[in-house]
Amino acid sequence: MGGTTINFDAINFKEKLSNFNEHWSPKIIAEMNNYQFKLAKIQGEFVWHDHKDTDEVFIVLEGEMSIAFRDKEVKLSKGEMFVVPKAVEHKPYAEKECHIMLVEPKGVINTGDTHSELTAENNVWI
Amino acid sequence: MGGTTINFDAINFKEKLSNFNEHWSPKIIAEMNNYQFKLAKIQGEFVWHDHKDTDEVFIVLEGEMSIAFRDKEVKLSKGEMFVVPKAVEHKPYAEKECHIMLVEPKGVINTGDTHSELTAENNVWI
Repeated sequence: MGGTTINFDAINFKEKLSNFNEHWSPKIIAEMNNYQFKLAKIQGEFVWHDHKDTDEVFIVLEGEMSIAFRDKEVKLSKGEMFVVPKAVEHKPYAEKECHIMLVEPKGVINTGDTHSELTAENNVWI
Repeated sequence: MGGTTINFDAINFKEKLSNFNEHWSPKIIAEMNNYQFKLAKIQGEFVWHDHKDTDEVFIVLEGEMSIAFRDKEVKLSKGEMFVVPKAVEHKPYAEKECHIMLVEPKGVINTGDTHSELTAENNVWI
């Protein structure tokens, strides 16, 4: 273990979610290997984008959201998840505020290769 | 995309959990890149083990569980997660049945390097 310090606190989703209010601005709550777990509050429409090098996991913690694909749409409710395959264009949206967890490799930008005013600051921990 | 078929069904945790009853026998529900998301029902004590090459994520979907470490213990309730660092010995347990999601690289064995009657068949999808 050579000096590694382990944080033995459970990571509580509701508590973490209470720390921010912005929409479309994922905050990191945990890392495993080179992957990050991020919480986000979303409402309204995001931009069309894809992630050329990685799949992306969406897990709905509270509320409902949809992920539009060019020829299809997936609806997700609390207690459901979906894996967006790499390089597939998608546009998340939520009519009412929805709380989600994202899983993706370190360094992934929320808008993928689409630069937008919705491009969020990266690597923000809460 | 070249012929990739995307499954556009949401993955519903409760529905997936209704497909099995065994304890300590993780079932795969999704893959992202070379990582797998697995559901498990646990009750009682597991074995001490570690995973030499990878961290391991525990997310509690229903109920309560604990993860014992050699000098500490973490309690986790519904809506909480914990990342067990690689190579750290741990023993999960739950007094009452608890439903969890695990995230780990493909091919990880549930008991790590500890062979046991609790070693589950690997790579089972539901």
